[in-house]
Amino acid sequence: MDESELIRRFFAPLGARRADVSLGIGDDAALLRLPAGSELVLSTDALVEGVHFLPHAAPRSLGHRALAVNLSDIAAMGAAPSWMLLSLILPEVQQTWLSQFCAGLAPLAERHAVALVGGNLARGPLSITVELAGVVPAGQALKRQGARPGDAIYVSGTPGDAAAGRLMQAREADASVRSPGVFTRALIERFEYPTPRVSLGEGLRGLASACIDVSDGLHTDARRMLTASGCAGQIDAALLPLSDPLRSLARQEGWSTTQMLLLALSGGEDYELCFCAPPARESALQALAATLGERITRIGAVTAGAGISVTSSNPDLPRLLESATFDHFGR
Amino acid sequence: MDESELIRRFFAPLGARRADVSLGIGDDAALLRLPAGSELVLSTDALVEGVHFLPHAAPRSLGHRALAVNLSDIAAMGAAPSWMLLSLILPEVQQTWLSQFCAGLAPLAERHAVALVGGNLARGPLSITVELAGVVPAGQALKRQGARPGDAIYVSGTPGDAAAGRLMQAREADASVRSPGVFTRALIERFEYPTPRVSLGEGLRGLASACIDVSDGLHTDARRMLTASGCAGQIDAALLPLSDPLRSLARQEGWSTTQMLLLALSGGEDYELCFCAPPARESALQALAATLGERITRIGAVTAGAGISVTSSNPDLPRLLESATFDHFGR
Repeated sequence: MDESELIRRFFAPLGARRADVSLGIGDDAALLRLPAGSELVLSTDALVEGVHFLPHAAPRSLGHRALAVNLSDIAAMGAAPSWMLLSLILPEVQQTWLSQFCAGLAPLAERHAVALVGGNLARGPLSITVELAGVVPAGQALKRQGARPGDAIYVSGTPGDAAAGRLMQAREADASVRSPGVFTRALIERFEYPTPRVSLGEGLRGLASACIDVSDGLHTDARRMLTASGCAGQIDAALLPLSDPLRSLARQEGWSTTQMLLLALSGGEDYELCFCAPPARESALQALAATLGERITRIGAVTAGAGISVTSSNPDLPRLLESATFDHFGR
Repeated sequence: MDESELIRRFFAPLGARRADVSLGIGDDAALLRLPAGSELVLSTDALVEGVHFLPHAAPRSLGHRALAVNLSDIAAMGAAPSWMLLSLILPEVQQTWLSQFCAGLAPLAERHAVALVGGNLARGPLSITVELAGVVPAGQALKRQGARPGDAIYVSGTPGDAAAGRLMQAREADASVRSPGVFTRALIERFEYPTPRVSLGEGLRGLASACIDVSDGLHTDARRMLTASGCAGQIDAALLPLSDPLRSLARQEGWSTTQMLLLALSGGEDYELCFCAPPARESALQALAATLGERITRIGAVTAGAGISVTSSNPDLPRLLESATFDHFGR
C-alpha cells in the first residue's frame, strides 16, 4: 500500500467536514479561511515512543492523546480548535495499528469539529506529531500573563488521576499482577484518554485573567503562569480536588495523603486548565462550570512577588515537591 | 540545560521579527494576525534520520533543509510564508549540534521573513518536523488542479542536481575516495542546501494554471499535478534543463545522457516548481523569471486524457523511468 493509498484509506475520511476548508488533504498545503476579526492560534505537540508512551501502547489511546494534548493547548488560549496536520513516523505499515489509531483520533476530532487538512508519513521510530490551528476573537485570547495579586487560582477536573493511571498501567504491563479493579481502570482511562477542556477554555474568555494547560504538573505549570504574569502565588494543598478513584486506590495501596497530593501537584499529563480570576467572578465561573458539566476548584491565590508556595499540614510537602518536577531535558 | 533554557538560548532568537505575531514562543500556543482578505496556508514536512538523511549528516544542512522543504510547499501554493513551528526529537542535547542546526535554519527563515512562533522538544531518535503557515490573497492560491489541455508545462531550476549531489555525498562518506571536484561540490550543495522558489511561486499567481513542488521527482510530481487537473501530459526529454555541473560530472563518471535524464526526471529532492500555463503567457513568465533571476524552462505540454508520457530519442527511457519512482511506503 503506497502513501497515497494509506492517506485515502485511513486519513482522508478522518475528522470533521468544515465549510472553512478551501482545500484539504491532497495538495502541497491546505487552504483555510478565518472568520473576520479573529486571530489564528497555532500549537504543536508530539508523542514519542519510550518518552510519552511505552512500546506496544494501545494505538487507540495514542490517536486520542495525540490530538487531546494539542486540544488542551488551544483550550488554554480560550480558542476554538479548527484544523489539524498529522505527522506520523511509523516503523512499518500495520493496517490494524492504523485502524485503531484512527479510531482513537476520529471521535475526538469530530466532537471538537476539527478537520484533518494535511500531514506527512515517513518510516522511522514511532512518533506522532500533531499541529493544531484554532481561531479566537482578536484580542480576546487567554494567556499565561495577566494574573494580578488578589486573583484566585483555579484548576479544572481532578489532577493526579492521569499520573496514578500511568503508574497503574506500567504495573499492569507486568502480567503476574491480577486484573485491576474498577477504580484502577478509571484512572488508567484518565491517563489513556484525557479530556481536553475545550468548551471550558472558550467559556473562560472574559472571565479568567490568565490560563495555562497542565501537562508537566500543576505545580510547575501554575508557576509558569504566575512567572509570565510577574506574580507569586500560594496553593493550599487542602483545597486540591482529589478524585474518588484516586482516594480508593490510595487506600488499597496504603498511600498517604501526602503521596496523593504529590501526584496531584507534580504528576503531570492531566491536561486540565489552571487559571486565575478576580474573586468577584467566582459565581460566574461556577455557573459556567455547572452549565458545561465541568468541575472547577479554587486552590489558592495570586500574590505579589515571585515564585509559588504550597501550604500543607505536612511540612515536608514543599521539599518533596521540589524533587519531583518534570522536564524532558533536565537531569 | 533544561527545555526552557534551550529555547531561550537557541530558538527564541531564531527567525524574523514580524509585526503580525501577537504572541510567539513561550505560551501554550502562538497568536497570529492574518491580513484582511487572505487565506491561511498550512503545510508540514519532516526529515527523519536514515530516511531523509544519513546518520551524522551536517546539522547546518538539516536546519536549512527542514525549512526549505516546507517553504517549497508554500511556494507551490503561490503563498507568502509567515510563521513556523519546529518539532525536534533529539537523542541528546549537544550544543554544538544545535548551534549548527540553527545556523542553517536562521538565515533561510530571515531571508523569507519567517518567524519561529513555537514548537516542541523531546528526546528520541533524531527527526525534525517543521510546520509552516503562510498567507495568500483569498481565492488566488495555486493548486495542483487547474491545468488545461494546450497549456505548456514548465519547471524551475535544473532538476537532477540534488539527486546527483546525494549520490556523490554518499560516496564521499567513503573516506578512501579523494576529495570531490568543484562541480561535485556544487551538486552536493544543491542537495544539502536546496533553494525554495518562494518569490517565483508568489509571482506565478495569475500566470500559472496549476503548480506543484518537485520533491519526489519531476515525473511523479508532474503526473500528480496533471491527475489532479484531470488532464494528461507529455514531457519532451530533450527540453529538460541539465546543469553544467551535472554534465561535467556525467562526463567524469562516464554516465550516459539517459542516466542524466533519469536523474532529472526521477531523482527527487529538487524542491523546484513544476507548473502549467497557457502558451500566451510565455513572455510574461520569462519576464517574471528574468526579474527574479530564476530560470524556468518549458518542458512539455498538457493534453486531454490521463497519464504522463515522456518522449525521448532513447526508446528505453520510459521503461527505465517507471522502475525508478519513489514512495516512502511503496515497495
